Amino acid sequence: TFNRGMQTVTLIPGDGIGPEISNAVIKIFESAQAPIQWEERNVTAIQGPGGKWMIPPDCKESMDRTKIGLKGPLKTPIAAGHPSMNLLLRKTFDLYANVRPCVSIEGYKTPYTDVNLVTIRENTEGEYSGIEHVIVDGVVQSIKLITEQASLRIAEYAFEYARNNQRASVTAVHKANIMRMSDGLFLRKCREAAEKHKDVKFTEMYLDTVCLNMVQDPTQFDVLVMPNLYGDILSDLCAGLIGGLGVTPSGNIGANGVAIFESVHGTAPDIAGLDMANPTALLLSAVMMLRHMGLHGYAKKIEAACFDTIRDKKVLTKDLGGNSKCSEFTDVISRRNIRRL
Amino acid sequence: TFNRGMQTVTLIPGDGIGPEISNAVIKIFESAQAPIQWEERNVTAIQGPGGKWMIPPDCKESMDRTKIGLKGPLKTPIAAGHPSMNLLLRKTFDLYANVRPCVSIEGYKTPYTDVNLVTIRENTEGEYSGIEHVIVDGVVQSIKLITEQASLRIAEYAFEYARNNQRASVTAVHKANIMRMSDGLFLRKCREAAEKHKDVKFTEMYLDTVCLNMVQDPTQFDVLVMPNLYGDILSDLCAGLIGGLGVTPSGNIGANGVAIFESVHGTAPDIAGLDMANPTALLLSAVMMLRHMGLHGYAKKIEAACFDTIRDKKVLTKDLGGNSKCSEFTDVISRRNIRRL
Ligand SMILES: CC(C)[C@H](C(=O)O)[C@@H](O)C(=O)O
Ligand SMILES: CC(C)[C@H](C(=O)O)[C@@H](O)C(=O)O
Repeated sequence: TFNRGMQTVTLIPGDGIGPEISNAVIKIFESAQAPIQWEERNVTAIQGPGGKWMIPPDCKESMDRTKIGLKGPLKTPIAAGHPSMNLLLRKTFDLYANVRPCVSIEGYKTPYTDVNLVTIRENTEGEYSGIEHVIVDGVVQSIKLITEQASLRIAEYAFEYARNNQRASVTAVHKANIMRMSDGLFLRKCREAAEKHKDVKFTEMYLDTVCLNMVQDPTQFDVLVMPNLYGDILSDLCAGLIGGLGVTPSGNIGANGVAIFESVHGTAPDIAGLDMANPTALLLSAVMMLRHMGLHGYAKKIEAACFDTIRDKKVLTKDLGGNSKCSEFTDVISRRNIRRL
Repeated sequence: TFNRGMQTVTLIPGDGIGPEISNAVIKIFESAQAPIQWEERNVTAIQGPGGKWMIPPDCKESMDRTKIGLKGPLKTPIAAGHPSMNLLLRKTFDLYANVRPCVSIEGYKTPYTDVNLVTIRENTEGEYSGIEHVIVDGVVQSIKLITEQASLRIAEYAFEYARNNQRASVTAVHKANIMRMSDGLFLRKCREAAEKHKDVKFTEMYLDTVCLNMVQDPTQFDVLVMPNLYGDILSDLCAGLIGGLGVTPSGNIGANGVAIFESVHGTAPDIAGLDMANPTALLLSAVMMLRHMGLHGYAKKIEAACFDTIRDKKVLTKDLGGNSKCSEFTDVISRRNIRRL
């Protein structure tokens, strides 16, 4: 069915609880009359000519056309040599920036309040280069690859993000005291981008110091930009501060508007199919997606319906401290949207 | 002055507030009649033949003889090419294990209670190999070096530590899903050590997952063992959970009993000489040192005097929330020791 004004998004429901929480998002979006048309695709890896792993052509074709994806959790591959689908997706679409806003959720108690920061992770190189060697028996090296181009690109992205999202400061996170050349290069490119964005405050901080300060007072941080591995660590740490991966949205951004938004929690096979999963992380990722598409009004409405439901504490899934089913939680959010149409 | 039954320790007061907090420790040790004789040494780096940076011979000689050091903070070198003295000390004496117990301090409020864990960090290789290259202009690589020998050594140390300190479990922290060969090797050696120490429970966890779980519930962790950089990060994160570097002790352990205990906070040049510094981290490091030397009774007494003083909240330095001077805080701890002689 073709709808005027509708935009198509590639939906990758994923494994385990993926389909349930994807359905929840579809329902909630419908209730808000969000102008999104979903094109469902599966990303089980296939082997192309020469044994190269790749994502299925119909998924690639869909993403190439729609440019925007929403993705549920994918199970970790167990076959030897099978790549992580998350890494393969980042690579296939050159999604160079992983963006994770971590904002305290009213009514959901954690040891911290008023957290409001964003981690921006370089998503394509660093420790994730995949280059490793055995030097001699019992001696192994892994290569951390840092390039000027990727460093400048992510640094520029961080400053643009700060400007577009009314954020006052960007902190570059590094260990250039130890990795003088690689993190040194990354840091120089951050300084270079800072020079071009004088409206945004720029600071530099060692990764260890950031971790320490983060658990003592996360409210001091705003936008943080960093190489791949540090981002892997800090984004999870920060998610922990606001309640974990079940409530934290994530976006992987590439060039020319291409992006995949995803919940970064696991597939939770133990509760899959039992109508117990919490769709919040995928829903908030879908809200990030709406903002990325310029659909700010729908984003605001759906986000408010979700946060109001959590603040209310009446209908919550188990992991959020309640007793309700995924479908009940979904219905309450949907009804809020309908009331506000 | 030669004292029968006294053991000599090399004291490196360090820079900034280092001398003040070292004096505080000396006073408190005297009040407890701890059988320690201090041999003071300075570690400003000097350049040997061929321009090689090394620690001064009289400091090296002292450490080679006493085998035990206590060290205050050292200022970060600013001269280009000048090495970090902390790294140079670890290297010179092959201090392969960095041990940091993080235990909640009663009366010192943080968002967490009942933290009681130990991070054990491989201190000699990994991302700290110092090997870096420019491949072509704008493309840099840093080498993470993991060896079978160093991995097995730290893994064995962690299990021995757990056994000797009545700790039930060891968790290996890694990213072997990404660095399959290097972290994979580290992990295999941990498993090998676990096989030999069936009395201690062994688990494995991704670094990002550890960070997330750590800020959500640190009480689930016991002994954690990990490669160099992960230890740098996690040890600071964990210090943050219990109140920061001002209250966290640290020990660098080598073979044959050689060890240097140190406070890992900075030199705080802004308050140096003003009798405002908090000697707790250095004092608790000195307590760790006493335990390492088998002087458990003195360790217990001094630690209790320190913790009782903090719990009391009457005389505390500014960073601990009080208004007292370093010397006043020191005196109160000392008087408790004298009363209990
Ligand atoms: C699944 C895994 C490969 C991945 C990573 O390490 O980047 C995950 O932790 C993430 O943060 O997306
Ligand atoms: C001073 C610095 C070189 C050091 C490190 O990175 O190891 C410090 O952070 C530490 O943890 O001892």
